[in-house]
Amino acid sequence: MNRTLKALPFTQVTIEDQFWAPRLRANRENTLTACLDQCDSTGRISNFAKAGGQADGEFEGIYYNDSDVYKVLEGVAYALMSQSNAELERRADDIIDQIAAAQEEDGYLLCYFTLQAPDKKWTDMAYHEMYCGGHLMEAAVAYKKATGKGALLAVACKLADHYDEIFGPGKRHWVPGHEEIELALIKLYEETKEDRYRDLAFWLLEERGHGNGSGEIWDREGWGPAYCQDDKPIREMTNVSGHAVRAMYLYTAVADAAAITSDQGYIDALDRLWESVVLRNMYVTGGIGPSKDNEGFTLDYDLPNETAYCETCASVGMVYWNHRMNLLHRDAKYADVVETALYNGALAGVSLSGDRFFYVNPLASKGAHHRVEWFGTSCCPTQIARFVPSIGNYVYATGDQTIYINLYVAGTGTMKLEDGVVTLTQKTNYPWDGNVQITVDATEMCSFELGLRIPGWCESAAFHVNDVPTRPAKLNKGYATLVREWKTGDTVTLQLDMSVQREHALPLVKANQGRVALRRGPLVYCVEQADNELNMEQWIVSSSTAFFTEHRADVLEGVTLIHCEDAASGKQFAAIPYYAWDNREPGPMAVWLREEK
Amino acid sequence: MNRTLKALPFTQVTIEDQFWAPRLRANRENTLTACLDQCDSTGRISNFAKAGGQADGEFEGIYYNDSDVYKVLEGVAYALMSQSNAELERRADDIIDQIAAAQEEDGYLLCYFTLQAPDKKWTDMAYHEMYCGGHLMEAAVAYKKATGKGALLAVACKLADHYDEIFGPGKRHWVPGHEEIELALIKLYEETKEDRYRDLAFWLLEERGHGNGSGEIWDREGWGPAYCQDDKPIREMTNVSGHAVRAMYLYTAVADAAAITSDQGYIDALDRLWESVVLRNMYVTGGIGPSKDNEGFTLDYDLPNETAYCETCASVGMVYWNHRMNLLHRDAKYADVVETALYNGALAGVSLSGDRFFYVNPLASKGAHHRVEWFGTSCCPTQIARFVPSIGNYVYATGDQTIYINLYVAGTGTMKLEDGVVTLTQKTNYPWDGNVQITVDATEMCSFELGLRIPGWCESAAFHVNDVPTRPAKLNKGYATLVREWKTGDTVTLQLDMSVQREHALPLVKANQGRVALRRGPLVYCVEQADNELNMEQWIVSSSTAFFTEHRADVLEGVTLIHCEDAASGKQFAAIPYYAWDNREPGPMAVWLREEK
Repeated sequence: MNRTLKALPFTQVTIEDQFWAPRLRANRENTLTACLDQCDSTGRISNFAKAGGQADGEFEGIYYNDSDVYKVLEGVAYALMSQSNAELERRADDIIDQIAAAQEEDGYLLCYFTLQAPDKKWTDMAYHEMYCGGHLMEAAVAYKKATGKGALLAVACKLADHYDEIFGPGKRHWVPGHEEIELALIKLYEETKEDRYRDLAFWLLEERGHGNGSGEIWDREGWGPAYCQDDKPIREMTNVSGHAVRAMYLYTAVADAAAITSDQGYIDALDRLWESVVLRNMYVTGGIGPSKDNEGFTLDYDLPNETAYCETCASVGMVYWNHRMNLLHRDAKYADVVETALYNGALAGVSLSGDRFFYVNPLASKGAHHRVEWFGTSCCPTQIARFVPSIGNYVYATGDQTIYINLYVAGTGTMKLEDGVVTLTQKTNYPWDGNVQITVDATEMCSFELGLRIPGWCESAAFHVNDVPTRPAKLNKGYATLVREWKTGDTVTLQLDMSVQREHALPLVKANQGRVALRRGPLVYCVEQADNELNMEQWIVSSSTAFFTEHRADVLEGVTLIHCEDAASGKQFAAIPYYAWDNREPGPMAVWLREEK
Repeated sequence: MNRTLKALPFTQVTIEDQFWAPRLRANRENTLTACLDQCDSTGRISNFAKAGGQADGEFEGIYYNDSDVYKVLEGVAYALMSQSNAELERRADDIIDQIAAAQEEDGYLLCYFTLQAPDKKWTDMAYHEMYCGGHLMEAAVAYKKATGKGALLAVACKLADHYDEIFGPGKRHWVPGHEEIELALIKLYEETKEDRYRDLAFWLLEERGHGNGSGEIWDREGWGPAYCQDDKPIREMTNVSGHAVRAMYLYTAVADAAAITSDQGYIDALDRLWESVVLRNMYVTGGIGPSKDNEGFTLDYDLPNETAYCETCASVGMVYWNHRMNLLHRDAKYADVVETALYNGALAGVSLSGDRFFYVNPLASKGAHHRVEWFGTSCCPTQIARFVPSIGNYVYATGDQTIYINLYVAGTGTMKLEDGVVTLTQKTNYPWDGNVQITVDATEMCSFELGLRIPGWCESAAFHVNDVPTRPAKLNKGYATLVREWKTGDTVTLQLDMSVQREHALPLVKANQGRVALRRGPLVYCVEQADNELNMEQWIVSSSTAFFTEHRADVLEGVTLIHCEDAASGKQFAAIPYYAWDNREPGPMAVWLREEK
């Protein structure tokens, strides 16, 4: 039996629910266009034209700006896979032409060095050369899948070949200052089946922690090799360190490599790192990286709220990494983290309208923190642009004769098992309630195990199969499994009991002592001034009171509010899902509320 | 505004739900008949005929056996109020004739002393003379209400007059060894409006704690006055002591008195005693009194499971007392205790068939504890006989312009407010789920506050009024209140989120360290051998696993099972509601289960 699961790609998944469909529409209609427009107006796209001799002028912006263009292209590709859009595709093709032109003869591609400092290529490992290259590769694979057009993929392969010529065993050492290339080369390998790309990815992973890194980061006081996870070899890693997004991209690649090689040293390291991140360094929102100074980690349990950095990209990185961990270990606890980061830390990164973004996601604000249209370093908007249209990736996974449902999202998933093709249709109002109806459509009578994730937040669940109360055969690593000969029309109803829950931080988290966070299903809540007359100092939750929930179609495109009441004074205040904050007038916000008798 | 609430008598309440209607039917069809038959065959009834000169022979049984006959008559009366039954009424009338005949010329009535020791009357306060008299009064009031027939009430009044002649200010002292007369005299006063009965009740309450008590109990080593709550005056009481049922009956009477007089000394004492009982001496089932030795209390937090005494009568007493506390304080926390004791500790006292009884209700058994048809001291069967048909008393309470719903039971309640008559109809599957639909039928447009109890176990709730999501005006002492102009057809739907919950005992409860009890809504669960292949040592709950619930119409007349699984071994075992245990083959049972990582 294959140890790892396969994710069902989002192209085999339709999303038709009230929660995610509007988010995907906002992405398609606003986010992608907004990001393309910003890439245009900030010179990110014309940099390619300039580098390719199609336009005149100097390089504009920051040396890693190419990556934003690639990430938006990746998002466009994902959007096109779900729904054709001639205008978006035309814009993409046009950009791809410029990218292709910008590639140098030998394959090198990074506008900054080509235009501004050609003699400085490959001199400082901090300079995101391979980081940008990695994003190109991801975009290229996506665009090929979406359109069948191979132009960008040819650029990506030529770039990968260029890397492979210079770096590798017996060639030059290189420790990419910002990881990304490793996971991208594995993706490129999976698309092209070119073993060299895989081997180069593996070699780059092994480069780390042996003193081969050098450059500005390595020398900077307080940063050093740990900042970019170069302080020790992967197999010796025990605790997360440094820049949060870099760590996530590295761990994602390590998990990809382990899925291919079953390297136990990698798996053991990942398991240790997972405990380090999730048990000691993660916010209740799934956000990570408390510090603005290094955009990353500090000390275990240092999780301040108002100054929480929690970069949007890092929450997305948590989804990427934990998704791989779930596939690797067939354990729903990783999908729990995917869900938490997805519905909270990551989704807060974009406005409901799709065209305003957070880079930084604090868990409390006095009112001065707001989404904006763009940033000088705009990794987060473009991360959202490519992430949201691909969330279908996280819904289903398959084993040999098992279908696992990791997320409850209305829509369908179509997957090929040994015995035939199966389509599952989910009907649900999740995350607003915990009832999910799953209908089977099979090409023929089909025996498989259906594994339904019982989320970590869920205290109890009930099942019916074809309206008959049923208990699952077992609860295996967080999956309730039903085994039977399925036939078309068979229906499983899952009821996940969903109460408002009080989350308490560990005593070691000083910021949250005497405080409570409210959670309902996958959603972490916050209190925002816009809903309330009481001010921030009065948002105090009685330690014994019950909460009232109220679904309001007219608030924030439809959310379930949690009404809180101080039993003593009778004052009420309302909480909203954290992902939806700062979509109205600016004002104070808090996730962790004072809790009193 | 009147400080205390009024309970809506069960005669104004219909019970039509799947949970309680079968229990009431079993009571009507089996419990009452079984108890009457037992009273017949054990000589309890013929004792009256003998005392009245209608039959020959000696007194049979124990000196307090008269009380069982009265309690069954009270139960018959309640049953007749809900549904006429010529055969039951004929049997009751026949017994009442014998009781009337047994009353002595001066009003004295207790078969034991009349027949066996007439010279020992009123010589030992332990001898339950007024205890039996009190039960006669309760039965008489009930039978008058049920049938309009006054014969038994006349006997009761003559007996009360007899007491009043002998005892009271300037007359003899008396401290009833087993309380009951106090609450009964208040009931008799409320029926007859005869102030002397109330005053005698108040005087009897004041008799306690002044050294006036004497008799076998007072002298017995280890018992003494505290055994029957005679160690200090009521206003000075701080901790529960002695015999559990006696304590409950006393506190019930004190609460009744306080409702009439608003005596702050009594109220303060009740509040202290409530904390003593509920916070330090109550089992998770609502059962009280751990010790077989004194049928009562020992030390705070001494709550052993296998040797738990938890007399059925004491759980019923908890309902009586906490019901009065709820009315006195308008606080739902007392109704929480009513609900817990009702659905668990008390209901376990009778088999589903209605004709087998527990006197003792342990929370764990190796398999040797079973319900039987009758006991030498049979207070518990006859307690159940009169308690079950009156549970409608605990559903609704009214204030001036407020209707409080304390229990969620399908059926109707009809109550008169200042503005008109209101009938509320509840539709619900409670306790199997937490959804309740309440429809208003009002004689005319009517403004009142509807207070819905949010049970202490409930973490969150949602409301709709006429299908519109609504938040209550406030949460006041556990009641969510909705205020509006109600008109016929208005419908409130209440959704009480109901997950399986883990109960952990306080660290001071040694018996339960490292253990967990499962609760779902009002029901406490236990694991019983009959459902399981695993044996008692293997009933171990993982500290992190989710539970599966499964409603099984074919098990124990319809129960929701909780399936538990040890995440490590994958072994499953099922838990059933505690009230339903020992209704199949005998076997081990446990409420508190080992909990492990």
